[in-house]
Amino acid sequence: METRNLIGNSYRPGNGNKFKAVDPAHGVDLPGEFYAASVAEANNAMDLADKAFTAYRNIGPKKKAAFLRSIADEIIAIGDALLERASAESGLPVPRLQGERARTTNQLKMFADLLEEGSWVEAIIDTAIPDRQPLPRLDIRKMMVPLGPAVVFGASNFPLAFSVAGGDTAAALAAGCPVVVKAHPAHPGTSALVAEAIRKAAEATAMPEGVFSILYDDGYAIGETLVKHPKTKIVTFTGSLKGGMALVKISRERDEPIPVFAEMGSINPLILLPGALKNRPAELAKLAGPITNNAGQFCTQPGLLITINGEGLAEFKTALAGEIKEIMSSTMLTPGICANFNKLAGNMLAEDAVKIIAKSEKVDTTKNNQGVPLVTEISAAEFLLDEKFKEEVFGPYSMLIVAENRGELEQVVNSLHGQLTASIYADGDELAGYKNVTDKLADIAGRVILNGPPTGVEVGNAIQHGGPFPATSDSRFTSVGTSSIKRFVRPVCWQNWSEDLLPDELKTSNPLNIWRLFNNEWKK
Amino acid sequence: METRNLIGNSYRPGNGNKFKAVDPAHGVDLPGEFYAASVAEANNAMDLADKAFTAYRNIGPKKKAAFLRSIADEIIAIGDALLERASAESGLPVPRLQGERARTTNQLKMFADLLEEGSWVEAIIDTAIPDRQPLPRLDIRKMMVPLGPAVVFGASNFPLAFSVAGGDTAAALAAGCPVVVKAHPAHPGTSALVAEAIRKAAEATAMPEGVFSILYDDGYAIGETLVKHPKTKIVTFTGSLKGGMALVKISRERDEPIPVFAEMGSINPLILLPGALKNRPAELAKLAGPITNNAGQFCTQPGLLITINGEGLAEFKTALAGEIKEIMSSTMLTPGICANFNKLAGNMLAEDAVKIIAKSEKVDTTKNNQGVPLVTEISAAEFLLDEKFKEEVFGPYSMLIVAENRGELEQVVNSLHGQLTASIYADGDELAGYKNVTDKLADIAGRVILNGPPTGVEVGNAIQHGGPFPATSDSRFTSVGTSSIKRFVRPVCWQNWSEDLLPDELKTSNPLNIWRLFNNEWKK
Repeated sequence: METRNLIGNSYRPGNGNKFKAVDPAHGVDLPGEFYAASVAEANNAMDLADKAFTAYRNIGPKKKAAFLRSIADEIIAIGDALLERASAESGLPVPRLQGERARTTNQLKMFADLLEEGSWVEAIIDTAIPDRQPLPRLDIRKMMVPLGPAVVFGASNFPLAFSVAGGDTAAALAAGCPVVVKAHPAHPGTSALVAEAIRKAAEATAMPEGVFSILYDDGYAIGETLVKHPKTKIVTFTGSLKGGMALVKISRERDEPIPVFAEMGSINPLILLPGALKNRPAELAKLAGPITNNAGQFCTQPGLLITINGEGLAEFKTALAGEIKEIMSSTMLTPGICANFNKLAGNMLAEDAVKIIAKSEKVDTTKNNQGVPLVTEISAAEFLLDEKFKEEVFGPYSMLIVAENRGELEQVVNSLHGQLTASIYADGDELAGYKNVTDKLADIAGRVILNGPPTGVEVGNAIQHGGPFPATSDSRFTSVGTSSIKRFVRPVCWQNWSEDLLPDELKTSNPLNIWRLFNNEWKK
Repeated sequence: METRNLIGNSYRPGNGNKFKAVDPAHGVDLPGEFYAASVAEANNAMDLADKAFTAYRNIGPKKKAAFLRSIADEIIAIGDALLERASAESGLPVPRLQGERARTTNQLKMFADLLEEGSWVEAIIDTAIPDRQPLPRLDIRKMMVPLGPAVVFGASNFPLAFSVAGGDTAAALAAGCPVVVKAHPAHPGTSALVAEAIRKAAEATAMPEGVFSILYDDGYAIGETLVKHPKTKIVTFTGSLKGGMALVKISRERDEPIPVFAEMGSINPLILLPGALKNRPAELAKLAGPITNNAGQFCTQPGLLITINGEGLAEFKTALAGEIKEIMSSTMLTPGICANFNKLAGNMLAEDAVKIIAKSEKVDTTKNNQGVPLVTEISAAEFLLDEKFKEEVFGPYSMLIVAENRGELEQVVNSLHGQLTASIYADGDELAGYKNVTDKLADIAGRVILNGPPTGVEVGNAIQHGGPFPATSDSRFTSVGTSSIKRFVRPVCWQNWSEDLLPDELKTSNPLNIWRLFNNEWKK
C-alpha cells in the first residue's frame, strides 16, 4: 500500500509528519504510516488539477465513461483486501462494506451511463428567426459545462461510497471537473487503496495528469489550503454541521466566493399517525433496525419519532423496548465519534424531561468504542421548550416525542429545522386528513417517505438527498443520484456561433443523439 | 398615484420619513412624496409573504399563469403615464421604455406559458421494482418546489424589465414564491404604478394576500431588514459589485444562510481578430452604438475591446472616432451614477498608459447629468500591469486594448475575471485557429457571441444571463429567460407516497400532460 500523497502521477512525501489509522474496535494502530501533505503539495495538486481541466473538459463523454468504469473495475480488482482494511479502519462489518462497495461501483457506472445517454447537459437550442418583428431572433444554444477543479472531502461514515471514489468524486469527474480528495483521516488505508485504483484507471484510459489527486492530513491545514486555493471552483463535504460550516466560512473569505455543498446535520423526523400506531405497534417497533443499524451512523438515521398519545402507544413502546434490548452494541467509526455520542446522549439524559424507554442489554465487551442503542421519550410540551432537544445525537439513538393531541404534534412539526428526510406512517385514509402536516414535511425536507424508514438511500434519477439548512448548505442540490452532477456545472450559451465549432451537444445535426429542447420542443 | 408602502392589500404610512424622485435630466424633484418603510412594516411584509406562501404554492399552474397575464394586462392598462413617469425618473427615452415595457409584459407571459407547459418542474419518476435483487426498489418521484418568500431588489437601469414586475418578480411568482420588492429609490413613481398593477391583478385573480408587497426606502435599512428576515428564503439583486456583495454579506450573518443571486459587475470583453479588423474596420466601428446606447447603462455593454496591432487598426480607430464624435450625450439614470461615471472615467484618464481615441463632441447642454461617450486606448502590456484597468466604468465608455501579437492577446484574455458575456469578431476560417481563446471565453463568461455585440439580451429558453464571479454571485444560475425560474426552487422527492396525494405533476396518469423522465425515459 502506497501511503504517500498522490499528486497527479507522483507519490509525494508530505510535510514530514506521519499518522496511523486506528482500529476502533480494538483501539490499536493499523499497519501503514500516512504522510501528512505539505501546504506546497496541496497547492501543487490544485495547480495540476487546473492544468488538467482544460484537457479533461474537452474529452468526449464516451472516454470519460470508460474512465469511470475503469475506476469501478480497479476497485473490484483490489479484492477482499479493500473490505478488510475498510472494516478494520471503520468498525463496520464486512457484509455492509460489501454492499457499500457495490453501491460505489454502481455509482461510477451510473454516471458512465449518464454521460453516454447525454441529456444531463440540458441542451437548449433556439435557432435564428431573421424576420422576427420588431427585432430578429439570433441563434442561441445553451448547455452545462464543468465549473473547474473540485475539492472532495471524504466522509467517515461511508469509507467507500462517500469517500475517495464515492458519489462526489464520480459526479465531479463525470461533469468534467478534476478532483482533489482530502482523505478522511479515519480511513487512510482504504483511501490509499482506492486512490491507487483511480490512478491506474486514469493511466489505463489516458486521462490528463492531475485529473485526480489525494492528500492526507490528520489536522485541518490541508483542507483549509484546498478550499482557499484560487483554482478551486467547488467543494463538497459530508459530515457534521460544525465541519461543514467551517468550510463554508473559509470559502467566504476567498476573493472569489465558490459554492460549498455541505451535507450536514439531520435528525430525520418520523411521524407515527394514530391509525398506524393503533393497528400495527409491533410492526412499527421494527424501526429499532433503522435506528441502530451500523451504530446508527447514517445521515438519514431516524433520530426523532413523533406521535400522539393514544391507542397502541403503550404496546409500541413495550415492543420497541423489547427489540432494542436484544440489539447488540456496535463499534462506532472512531473513538471521537463514540465519545461524542456518549456525551450528547448523556446531555439528553441529564434533562429531567427526558426518560429512557429502551436500551440495549447486549454490550459487546470484547470490543472498544461501542455504541449502545438507546431510545428516550419526551413530551411534546417539554420538547417545544428548548432547542437543545433538536440537536443531532449521531449514533444508535432516537427520541420519541409524545404529543397530547394533534395540535401539539403540528406544533412539534412546525418547530423543526431543515432535514434530509421526513417520514410518516399512516393507515388507511388518515394521511389525507393530515395535509397541513405532509405539506410542512415537504417544506422542511428533501425527501418525504410514507410507511417506510428513511435509511437505505436509493441511488437513482429521482432521489433527492439534500434539504433546507442545516441539513445542507444549499437545498437546491442533491449529493446522491444522477442529479448530483448538477452541483459541478454551470450553463454557458453560444450566440450566433459557427455550427462547426459548437460543442457536439449543440450542433443542429445532434451527432450525440441526445434529448434537447429544440425551438421549445423536447426531442432527439 | 399611491406613494405609500403596499403590504398585502394595505397601503401603509412608513416610518415618517419621505423622499421624492428626481428628474436627472433637469435636476428637479418630480411629483409625489414616497413613504420610507418602517422596519416593522418590512417585518410585516415578510410575515405576510410567509403566510401567503402556503396558500400560493398550492395554487395550480393555470391560475398562477392567469395571475401573471393579468399583471401584464394591468401594466399595459396604465398607458402612457407609465412610460412618461419612467422616462422622467430615469432619463431614458420613451421609445426605449416602450420596448422595455413590451419586454416586461412578454416576460410575464413567457412564464405563464412555461407554467402551462409544465416541464420546468423537472419531474422524475422511478417506479417500484419489488423483486429487484438484492433489495427492492421503492417508488420515488421528484420535482421542483418553491423555496419560499423572495426579496427582489429593483434595478436602476431597467425601471420596468428588472424592477417591480421585472424578470425576477415574474420568475419568483411563477415558481410559487411570494415576492417582497424593495423599490429602487431612483424610480419610486414607476415602481408605485407597477405595484398597483400587481395589486389589482392579485385581487382580480383571487391570489392570497401577501403574495406581493412593495417597500420604499432611500437608505439601506429596509433592504437589510428584508435580507435578514428569517422568513426570507431567497434574494435577487441586479446592480453594482459593491451593492451585491453587501447583500451577500448580510445573508451570511443569518442563522440560516440563504441564496443571494446578485448580478453585478461585467466589462464584457469583445475581441476583434485580425481578419475581421482587416476586412471590415468601418463595420466594426458601428460598435459605437452598443458602447453608447442609453448612456451605456447596460450590464452587457462592451467595456473592453481587445485586438492585435495590424492591418485595419488605424482605419478602425479613425472610423470609431468618427462615429463616437457624432453621438449625442445622454442623460444618465441618476446624478450619483453620472458622478461615478465621470470619476471612474477620470481615474482611467489620469493614467499615463491610457489615451483618448474617441470622444463625443455633441454634449446636450440643455440637460443635466450627461454621460458623454468616450473610448480610450491602452497597450496590452500596460493593461496587464494593473488590475485597476479591469474596473467597470458604468456608462458610455469603452477601452481598446492593443496587443502586439497573438501571445499578448491571449495573455489579456487569460487575465480576465468572470463576465456576463464575451464576444469575438472573426472572418472566414480564422475563428477555428483560436480555439484556446474561445475555450477561455466560455470559461470566464456565461454567454459567448460570434460577430455581434453583447447588448440586446434575448429573453428565451436558451439564454444564459449570468457568469462566474464577479459577474454574478453564483454562476450556476441565470437571471434572464425561462431557466431563471430555477433560482427560486429546490427538488423534493416523495418515496412510496400515496398516488392520490402526490402533486399532479408526479401522478402516474400525468394529468397535466407534461414531459417527464419516467423510468429513465423522457416522455409525456
